[in-house]
Amino acid sequence: MLINIITIFPDIFNSYFGESIIQRAQDKKLLRLEAHDLRSFTHDKHHTVDDTPYGGGAGMLLKVEPIYEAVQSLTKTSALQTIKNIIKPKRRKVVLLSAKGKTWTQALAREYSKLDELILICGRYEGVDERVLSFVDEEISIGDYVLTGGELGAMVMVDSIARLLPGVLGNEASYEDESHSELGVLEYPHYTKPPVFKMGNKELTVPEVLVSGNHQAIADWRQQHKNFKF
Amino acid sequence: MLINIITIFPDIFNSYFGESIIQRAQDKKLLRLEAHDLRSFTHDKHHTVDDTPYGGGAGMLLKVEPIYEAVQSLTKTSALQTIKNIIKPKRRKVVLLSAKGKTWTQALAREYSKLDELILICGRYEGVDERVLSFVDEEISIGDYVLTGGELGAMVMVDSIARLLPGVLGNEASYEDESHSELGVLEYPHYTKPPVFKMGNKELTVPEVLVSGNHQAIADWRQQHKNFKF
Repeated sequence: MLINIITIFPDIFNSYFGESIIQRAQDKKLLRLEAHDLRSFTHDKHHTVDDTPYGGGAGMLLKVEPIYEAVQSLTKTSALQTIKNIIKPKRRKVVLLSAKGKTWTQALAREYSKLDELILICGRYEGVDERVLSFVDEEISIGDYVLTGGELGAMVMVDSIARLLPGVLGNEASYEDESHSELGVLEYPHYTKPPVFKMGNKELTVPEVLVSGNHQAIADWRQQHKNFKF
Repeated sequence: MLINIITIFPDIFNSYFGESIIQRAQDKKLLRLEAHDLRSFTHDKHHTVDDTPYGGGAGMLLKVEPIYEAVQSLTKTSALQTIKNIIKPKRRKVVLLSAKGKTWTQALAREYSKLDELILICGRYEGVDERVLSFVDEEISIGDYVLTGGELGAMVMVDSIARLLPGVLGNEASYEDESHSELGVLEYPHYTKPPVFKMGNKELTVPEVLVSGNHQAIADWRQQHKNFKF
């Protein structure tokens, strides 16, 4: 899967994408991530990406033209490769991250993990020219709170999608086991060593059943303590 | 405000916290951010932070002891300073980022922006020993999707809180104007130059009212096109 990110802060992604699962997915060639600087799709000498809103008001809006040009440039390359039969036609989505978008969920992450290509446009809090919606497939928000820009939303989308790509969690194959839900161990409370943990004067122990060795009793306890959030 | 983050990936935060609003808040001394490596609160030579779950199952859980020690160490310093009257007692919260937590919202961001100190414990997808909840004030999730760890959740919390600290958005004072909601320009569609944008054969224009100069008509149009998400 190829994920192209259009942003005015391409460097913001460096440390997150270099760690953990995201790096592993890239090393295994299951995911390719590219952050593109929106300013490189401008033509004036100041590389202007924003301007004041029509009708007045505070803040600056991201302009439609550089965003359109960035999306065109990222999709054209692939169209050419498709014509030349180098690669098969893409299942692709163009997404604008914005606070007023549709809320991102695990169900959407599963759906998006089946795409070949995803283009994420990082809006800024101040806003984006509404005409961007003319060439965007979906407007997505990661939750009901205001963030400075779409960059964290893009990281959240990439992280939640990357984990679902076949092979990424390869060594933890049990997560893919039919008998486990995708949420695995998040479903019920878990404990690890030590059996007794001293917190000040208190001694916090592990529920006895979990150290009983009785598999049926453990399964029953876990069933009773399931968390139905997802 | 001081935000301490406990994580096994302290470097993940480097690029995000060096850009934009977060950097500005730090430069203005309105926010201090510190990422602490959980491994430095272990005492074995391998710096073990995780172990297998009691009762069996996939994945590794973060151990309770290093997390407790990290929280103790971060709160003790402040307690000592408080006794010595160096600083006034803290309004402080200790939060565990986890998929099964309470969902983060703008209302919570406003509430948290009034704290003096926040300690964010980044869980990992595989899970955390349940006993961590014994010394945590709140378990928070940033949305209904599964992430590899709590690090992105911590960044989201920091970003949404930082914007609300008085003085951070100083130069954009109009956001704080009583006549604007906190969501400012996100509430209705916005447009900026050019007045006509050519997308292939189509010409996308700006709604006429916004270029009319009629302030009452603009205000009415914006009222009609409000987005009631928040």
